[in-house]
Amino acid sequence: METLNKATMEEMLSTPNRLLVGAGPGNLDPRVARALTLPLLSHLDPSFWEIMDSTADLLRQVFRTENDATLLLPATGMAGMETMFANLIEPGDKALIGHSGHFGSLMVEVASRQGAEVTEIQGPEDGAIDEEEFIEKLDSDDFAVAATVHAETATGTFQSVQKVAAACQERDTLFLMDAVTSLGGMDVRVDDWGVDACYSGTQKCLSIPSGGSPITFGERAMRKVRNRKQKPCTYYFDIQELMRYWSGGMEKSYHHTAAIPLVYATHEALRVLLEEGLENAFERHIRCSKLLLEEIEPLGFKPFAQPEYRLPMITAVTMPEGLNAKDVRTRLREEWNIETDLGLGEIAEKILRIGLKGYSAQPRNAAYVTLALSTMVGAA
Amino acid sequence: METLNKATMEEMLSTPNRLLVGAGPGNLDPRVARALTLPLLSHLDPSFWEIMDSTADLLRQVFRTENDATLLLPATGMAGMETMFANLIEPGDKALIGHSGHFGSLMVEVASRQGAEVTEIQGPEDGAIDEEEFIEKLDSDDFAVAATVHAETATGTFQSVQKVAAACQERDTLFLMDAVTSLGGMDVRVDDWGVDACYSGTQKCLSIPSGGSPITFGERAMRKVRNRKQKPCTYYFDIQELMRYWSGGMEKSYHHTAAIPLVYATHEALRVLLEEGLENAFERHIRCSKLLLEEIEPLGFKPFAQPEYRLPMITAVTMPEGLNAKDVRTRLREEWNIETDLGLGEIAEKILRIGLKGYSAQPRNAAYVTLALSTMVGAA
Repeated sequence: METLNKATMEEMLSTPNRLLVGAGPGNLDPRVARALTLPLLSHLDPSFWEIMDSTADLLRQVFRTENDATLLLPATGMAGMETMFANLIEPGDKALIGHSGHFGSLMVEVASRQGAEVTEIQGPEDGAIDEEEFIEKLDSDDFAVAATVHAETATGTFQSVQKVAAACQERDTLFLMDAVTSLGGMDVRVDDWGVDACYSGTQKCLSIPSGGSPITFGERAMRKVRNRKQKPCTYYFDIQELMRYWSGGMEKSYHHTAAIPLVYATHEALRVLLEEGLENAFERHIRCSKLLLEEIEPLGFKPFAQPEYRLPMITAVTMPEGLNAKDVRTRLREEWNIETDLGLGEIAEKILRIGLKGYSAQPRNAAYVTLALSTMVGAA
Repeated sequence: METLNKATMEEMLSTPNRLLVGAGPGNLDPRVARALTLPLLSHLDPSFWEIMDSTADLLRQVFRTENDATLLLPATGMAGMETMFANLIEPGDKALIGHSGHFGSLMVEVASRQGAEVTEIQGPEDGAIDEEEFIEKLDSDDFAVAATVHAETATGTFQSVQKVAAACQERDTLFLMDAVTSLGGMDVRVDDWGVDACYSGTQKCLSIPSGGSPITFGERAMRKVRNRKQKPCTYYFDIQELMRYWSGGMEKSYHHTAAIPLVYATHEALRVLLEEGLENAFERHIRCSKLLLEEIEPLGFKPFAQPEYRLPMITAVTMPEGLNAKDVRTRLREEWNIETDLGLGEIAEKILRIGLKGYSAQPRNAAYVTLALSTMVGAA
């Protein structure tokens, strides 16, 4: 076999080294890339279990929670959404879902498939739902859960949630939150705010490769899970089954085979983040997005979101006259090796999303994107 | 940030370099390990889409199918099982499930959660279900699906399926198969046999890190999917939604963020396997398991499975007098850095499972395990 390896090594897959500043995966810190290649362990090896426990502890620090049920789901951020609703909705439950973009709308789809009777409250695409209105709606029916997206990836808009979460805590309503794009890039306080269940994705501000979804369920949520009349239709995402494997210490039992290299990478990336300090990381995101906008707004790239709703980690901009977003995205990739994203849904081709997030949130990246965009405006 | 990296590099996670010959993940071919660290691409980058399409083609070669709906699920092998039943069971459907071990039993659980009325047919733990009996049972009711596990990981036993699959093709019954442990290590012929849906796991004989599940749905299965009265309760594992992203060519649209490094590793591992040739790989597995048994049976380690049902990639053995499996597993790990597994379920502590599979199926590994075990027998 060694001969075969040697003979074919040169034909191996190779991929261009792009600057990843879109809405999806970002570049990796070299420490995280290195962690991916640590020697594999078995998912049932006590040495690996120690890494799992340590990873769960690090996740608790980033979520700012003491929730026991905190783990890395063996599937992507969309699976976090599904896990939350599959466990916390029973057929016929009433769910209030606030949305202002693509991922909020997906919550309606995912919750409905679990048998929820969904009431929607919709915010503007370039803004968010007024919290007072959200709370008013909360009182219009007997909702088992209320859910929304903290940072809408599709449009780069921010939804404040603290008042809604507090209102849910005063009622018999669980508050569920998508923190796919916010976690690690802006303040997320699961315990202080009273978020009953929250999930994220590995590949946004945490700068871990895609494939995992950090998730946490609080005690109110777990009580609902334990009191379910019927099991969730999913076995793979059943939080009680998952916790048989992710429970602390040496009492773990098999539920699935953990994605080993991804757990290594998660452990290392969370350490990188916590060594920098969450507050420092949040500031770095703000600094980079400000820098970027200050440079590209004069070129005619206008921020899509209203000022008070702009996310620091995803900057969505409309195009100067004479340019269209689709062409700009293609040219950024092909001429500059810069990966950005269009919008999602109806506004797809109107906006370009630039994500200086996680490890990619560095001033030099803002400068490089600016340079690339400036040449296109000059040429238009 | 560079200073921080330098200062903390020495404290980085490190993991012991174990020989992984249990039932779970195996060691990686160096080419596959290298693929994990290729520069990341966005999940929406056409350059990545080419790799996806090529990966799907390689998967078709390994599954021996021309099924269009062939892809890498962004979740582990257990998710393959769930995807199969979630899409192909509608509430009230009758399902015949044949099982002889832990993973077969899990099929009952997973199918039931999807609303199936399950009829079980059980084989002996050290053997398999007689195909004629399976077919007789098939005629006892109006089954929408029949399902079984081709290679039972929990006990190292083989279930022949060709007659049952053919019988299903003659009836209005879909035949669904778990090939988690068999794919890449023994003959699996999706099209020739008439398997309507089949899934595997990345970390067994394919020698890809855990985290993915190759899956394929044939035309009969897709017809059932298209004719469903209601959507599956899962959005994440909805095969039609998955195919929006995995469909060939440049018409892909977002459904989830692919686990990029895992797709790279899958692409490379499948090439390694196909360059060796499937038949050669199958023979290598047989050679290694024979070698192992020839050496350790005289030491008192008796094969658990009856001869005609033994898998080549997982050898389950009972202990010689004076040894117990739990201690042997611990000593193998702690004294020899060899990772093996106990059984699963009721027989857990009676058997040791040694998995010379995928890249780990090499004669030198059989020799090393033999050496380690021989010292324990000598000392007993």
